[in-house]
Amino acid sequence: MSHPILTELNHRYTAKHYDASKRIPQTDLDIIYEAIRLSPSSINSQPWKILVIESDEAKQRFHDTFKNKFQFNQKHAKTASHTILFAHKTHYSRTDYEHVIDTDIALGRTPAENKEQAFGAFAFVDMNTNDAGNNAAWTKSQVYIALGNTMNALARLNIDSTPMEGIDHELISDAFPELEGYQCDVALAMGYHDAAEDYNAALPKSRLSVERVLTVL
Amino acid sequence: MSHPILTELNHRYTAKHYDASKRIPQTDLDIIYEAIRLSPSSINSQPWKILVIESDEAKQRFHDTFKNKFQFNQKHAKTASHTILFAHKTHYSRTDYEHVIDTDIALGRTPAENKEQAFGAFAFVDMNTNDAGNNAAWTKSQVYIALGNTMNALARLNIDSTPMEGIDHELISDAFPELEGYQCDVALAMGYHDAAEDYNAALPKSRLSVERVLTVL
Repeated sequence: MSHPILTELNHRYTAKHYDASKRIPQTDLDIIYEAIRLSPSSINSQPWKILVIESDEAKQRFHDTFKNKFQFNQKHAKTASHTILFAHKTHYSRTDYEHVIDTDIALGRTPAENKEQAFGAFAFVDMNTNDAGNNAAWTKSQVYIALGNTMNALARLNIDSTPMEGIDHELISDAFPELEGYQCDVALAMGYHDAAEDYNAALPKSRLSVERVLTVL
Repeated sequence: MSHPILTELNHRYTAKHYDASKRIPQTDLDIIYEAIRLSPSSINSQPWKILVIESDEAKQRFHDTFKNKFQFNQKHAKTASHTILFAHKTHYSRTDYEHVIDTDIALGRTPAENKEQAFGAFAFVDMNTNDAGNNAAWTKSQVYIALGNTMNALARLNIDSTPMEGIDHELISDAFPELEGYQCDVALAMGYHDAAEDYNAALPKSRLSVERVLTVL
């Protein structure tokens, strides 16, 4: 069994040390951003805000959010070329979904006269929303689809990456007011590993056997 | 901006009606299964059980789980070539993680004498586990990475798919005792759409503008 999909997935790994001198070309960044934007999500809700840490100023802000915990990830803030903060809306609303429907209408996907009918899909949000209007567990799941999609795209572009749940979502909320209404529980550092320092680059890939995880009925 | 990644992601969509006469070739299925197995997850936990609905008997079992709700997805149970049930472990334990570590040791990724040290990463599980030992919210997130990865692979293989949160996880647990200890909140039907019946195949892709969802800092 051989296919570029598998070659790339076997090649990708979690980078543990970046070469701070290397930067992702803008042509690749543009592809990454568009791949993120095209990520699927339940009822096409797209309940996310994506912040890309690119400037030295933003890297410093991100760096400082590691002051209380997960210091082992702090070095990536300044050595990775870019870091993507994947944030999910905590109280996804009909107004949010209206933006999706209006986009559908503008693009000719939904006739304007069917706008109210298009809200029918919002039942999926309702069934995942508590009495306080919080549906963060559901929106977070959607963000992980985008994360999986992005890691896949990076592997194909031969760009290294480091998914990080080891981030401080409270300090990130404080440091990045751009995320108001959203919570960031996962980030993805991206760049090019430092061959001399990244012990993980040369280690063999490890996954559970297919017999353990997958059954065909 | 042009790249096969974007061509494929623009081409993929949620199929709404399958051609029941078409089956995914085994060579593609093998790639799909291996791509799923290679999906990344936090601390390489792989807290999932993947059931593939292939036989008529399994399709009937799956079909019958729609008797109470989400009937609009029921037709896919028998018309899609295959459906993947993505299930997450509700009480991921040190014993589960020991399987991962033992695999690392067997593959030469971790020296046997470092086995105890390797459990250090389990702190990520502990911080996501409640007093009753439940960490389903965390394991579910990991499953959505695998889902995103799989949808990406399918787009590349030019296989249509339908992600479905509209499934009855309780009836699925009853119908598939293979999932004991796991919960299935999302499934992915796969196959080839029926050009005459699938209204969604010809509709334009719709996503929110990049300005709305992504900010470079």
